[in-house]
Amino acid sequence: MPLVRIDLPAATSTADVEAVSNAVHHALVEVFRVPEDDRFQLIGRRGPGELVCTPQYLGIAHSDRVVIVQVTCSPGRPGALKQQLYARIAAGIAGATTFAAADVIINLVESLRENWSFGEGIAHYVLQDRERAGVPAS
Amino acid sequence: MPLVRIDLPAATSTADVEAVSNAVHHALVEVFRVPEDDRFQLIGRRGPGELVCTPQYLGIAHSDRVVIVQVTCSPGRPGALKQQLYARIAAGIAGATTFAAADVIINLVESLRENWSFGEGIAHYVLQDRERAGVPAS
Amino acid sequence: MPLVRIDLPAATSTADVEAVSNAVHHALVEVFRVPEDDRFQLIGRRGPGELVCTPQYLGIAHSDRVVIVQVTCSPGRPGALKQQLYARIAAGIAGATTFAAADVIINLVESLRENWSFGEGIAHYVLQDRERAGVPAS
Repeated sequence: MPLVRIDLPAATSTADVEAVSNAVHHALVEVFRVPEDDRFQLIGRRGPGELVCTPQYLGIAHSDRVVIVQVTCSPGRPGALKQQLYARIAAGIAGATTFAAADVIINLVESLRENWSFGEGIAHYVLQDRERAGVPAS
Repeated sequence: MPLVRIDLPAATSTADVEAVSNAVHHALVEVFRVPEDDRFQLIGRRGPGELVCTPQYLGIAHSDRVVIVQVTCSPGRPGALKQQLYARIAAGIAGATTFAAADVIINLVESLRENWSFGEGIAHYVLQDRERAGVPAS
Repeated sequence: MPLVRIDLPAATSTADVEAVSNAVHHALVEVFRVPEDDRFQLIGRRGPGELVCTPQYLGIAHSDRVVIVQVTCSPGRPGALKQQLYARIAAGIAGATTFAAADVIINLVESLRENWSFGEGIAHYVLQDRERAGVPAS
């Protein structure tokens, strides 16, 4: 269910791209309890001038090597869980790549469960929620 | 009103890109009753490793040729209509391109009608809704 | 807090890209009262066929040189302020670049204040709102 857009400098090594991708996914699995095989990510390599980031905001200084992670996911998770997710993503990226935790910017966009299809044109969560509620399919 | 981001493999032929673009637009016109000339799309060609998709999720297997369609549109359409949209998009793409229906991933993000401007800095739907309600412009 | 995605033709000059980036940021600062150092933007240069725009919609004609600005920001600003933002962005871009005001398309996506982290994995606005409310940090 999460659709994750990860944008980072074009000069990032393939190893770092993969490690960022993994760190974000593992954080979603561990903190948000997203299924392990629910993984959909778009990586954007941004050239010079295409990833604009303030040198400093809210007391945190940013280098010129920033990662921006935008996660579209289902709504309603408590704020405390979101806090944990941010911490896990930033620590995971900093621990496995050359990016600093200070340079990990995260934004969640929440979208209803009925707003997803994972192939074959099926509204998977509509069917899933109906089954759980014991409503017949037709 | 819909702003559509379509991401697909960089190696996709121009003919397939155009056919995907058309299939998504026609589905929006036919199912969501979007005006024919309300067409705004961003196509992202993703290189190797930049479009990360699970091999299988919810019983649907994915190849390495996946299309991800993210549609930002107005809120409040009923779930049944969204289901129809997904079916129409997936069938339209599979019918007109080399992509499989199983490889069409769709996500809707809903955004208020007042959140759009289609040029000249005008909040078009604010004016439109005001006119319909019979409220004078100033 | 705003995360701004700006998509424009790949052939756009560096000077125009910078001027568009500045115009959008200044409008957010002046109209939405976003802090000057709260600047996070992703510029997408789109090749031929990758930026699809209707020739005309709602009475506004578009050239083949269009700028699409999608701003993810906090929810709840009044419609009248959004109208001012659109006007300021379009005028700012038209005044400083070779793009026409008619070719500036804008969409806002609203996302809760708890949905942001600006580095170090901190949920900055959660902490900020807690402080303002006089709630102790732990």
